[in-house]
Parts: sequence; structure tokens; C-alpha cells
Amino acid sequence: MKTISCRFLDSQDENGTITIKPLGKAKNGVSKPMLPGWKDIVTEIVIDKEYTDGLDGIEDYSHVIIVYWMDKEKECHLKHHPQGRADVPFIGIFACRCPQRPNPIGISTTEIISVKDNIIKVKGLDVIDNTPILDIKPYTPQYDSALNAKVPEWVDKLDY
Amino acid sequence: MKTISCRFLDSQDENGTITIKPLGKAKNGVSKPMLPGWKDIVTEIVIDKEYTDGLDGIEDYSHVIIVYWMDKEKECHLKHHPQGRADVPFIGIFACRCPQRPNPIGISTTEIISVKDNIIKVKGLDVIDNTPILDIKPYTPQYDSALNAKVPEWVDKLDY
Repeated sequence: MKTISCRFLDSQDENGTITIKPLGKAKNGVSKPMLPGWKDIVTEIVIDKEYTDGLDGIEDYSHVIIVYWMDKEKECHLKHHPQGRADVPFIGIFACRCPQRPNPIGISTTEIISVKDNIIKVKGLDVIDNTPILDIKPYTPQYDSALNAKVPEWVDKLDY
Repeated sequence: MKTISCRFLDSQDENGTITIKPLGKAKNGVSKPMLPGWKDIVTEIVIDKEYTDGLDGIEDYSHVIIVYWMDKEKECHLKHHPQGRADVPFIGIFACRCPQRPNPIGISTTEIISVKDNIIKVKGLDVIDNTPILDIKPYTPQYDSALNAKVPEWVDKLDY
């Protein structure tokens, strides 16, 4: 069976520490995070040219999950009020999607607008300009979507 | 507004290389990847005790997204037949969910069974024993689910 291999961007040392290099960057000219306001923002995900062929076939999906590194986040919270909102409970960082995490990895599901060469154009992605991109995954409801998922009521008060 | 801070597990150098430490490990006694067969597997996500309070409130959700590092994956593919299946197209690694990626980060949506101290028990998570855990995010349909998502037809031939 045909396989074309590529170069790993990672390694892991004997203490379990992982080293990662981004695949590329997000380009959208947005200089600061905002809440809300991302819905109509168009972002170009520009990946290193050596990975261009890795995008073959992605145009047959409507959505992708972008995995990124929130490199401008300088706070790490164990517990807080999500989005700094006094009207929602004081909860753990793993019970919300806020960026102030021990490992500031973000994952966002976003609509594909176009794919050309080493660039995927997406709409509604909530990242600022130059955010490092770690991975691109096709959104696959069979795998990603949970039916009848339950969330706490305060989640509906937040901005997305 | 009240905030309890914690320690970052990451850093990024001037060349953009990111260093990450896992939050914890998956424990389920499964020694090898399998396809299919994960549906009824129960896994304990055991995080470092210093992050225990970060789980407060996660019990109010039904599902979590586990972000993990596929440290046992030793191949990196640019293009292949997903799941080594001759009956599906030869496509790019970013157009499938296979683990042979430049940055082998996995994300799986999984059902919460229980939360106690520094351990979340989940069902159906497709990772092997001792997989390093990078992040835990509450599954939030408002943010994670795409309505009317389109995927290529061959996706239905795969095992999950």
C-alpha cells in the first residue's frame, strides 16, 4: 500500500518533556483577543511548504479542527470565573475553555472557505494573528460529535 | 474577581520551538492500539496532584475532550491510505485522523463516568496505557459542534 512519509516535528526526552515545532501560522491581522466577534473573521492557515501535500483531500470536508498554541497567553489559572465574569461560577480551568491553561493548547472547529497550495482559508476561527499552528484535523461528526451532551447552565451566559 | 493561579508547563524559545510537560497519564491497561474496540474501554485520566482543583466543576458536563500525545507512534506520513485501507483514497495526513502526524497530538471526545480527586474516569477513549495527557477540555456543543458538517463518503468505511 502506498505511503509517503514526512518528518516529525517533535521529540520527547527521558523525563517525558515534549518538544514541538509548529506546522505554520495563522494570518488574519487581528492583534488582540476579543469576545465575541470572531464569527465573520477570515483567517489563512499558512503551513510550511514541505507539508503542502498533507492537505490533499481536505477540500472534501466542510470543517476543520485547528490545533494551536496560545503563545501570547501569559497567565495560568487553576481556578477562576470564566471570561472574568462575576455572574458565572468560580470553577477549575479544566471545566472551561479559557486560554489561561497549564498547557495553552487551543482547539477550534471552523468552516473551510478554500484550500490552495499550502494555505487553508477558514471562517470564524478565534485566534489572533501569527498564532502557531500545531495540527489540522478534519472535523468528523462520527468521531467528534457527542449526542445529548450535557453542559452546566452558566455556559450559555458566555460569549463565543 | 477571585483567581487562583497555577504553574505553566510550557515554554517557547526564540525559534518558536515549544516545550511541553504532560499534565498526567491515561491508565487503562490497553497495551496496543486497536480498530475498532474502544467503545466500552474505561480509562482513568490521572493528573498531577497540583492540578486537582483545576477539575472543579467538570462533573457538571457529560463529556470531555482529552488532548494527548501519541508517544508510541513512530511513523510520520505525509500521504497514505487512512487506516492502511486499500479501499479508501490515498490522501494527505491532514485530511484524516490517523496518528502518523508531524505533531502526534490526538483529540478525542469521550464520556465522563466519574470524577474523584485527581482522576477522571472516562469511557470510549481511544488511547493506550500510559499515554501522556496534555489538556482536558469540557465538550461544549455551542463551541465544538458544527451543524450540517460535510465529510467525504469514504469516511464511513473506517473503524472508530
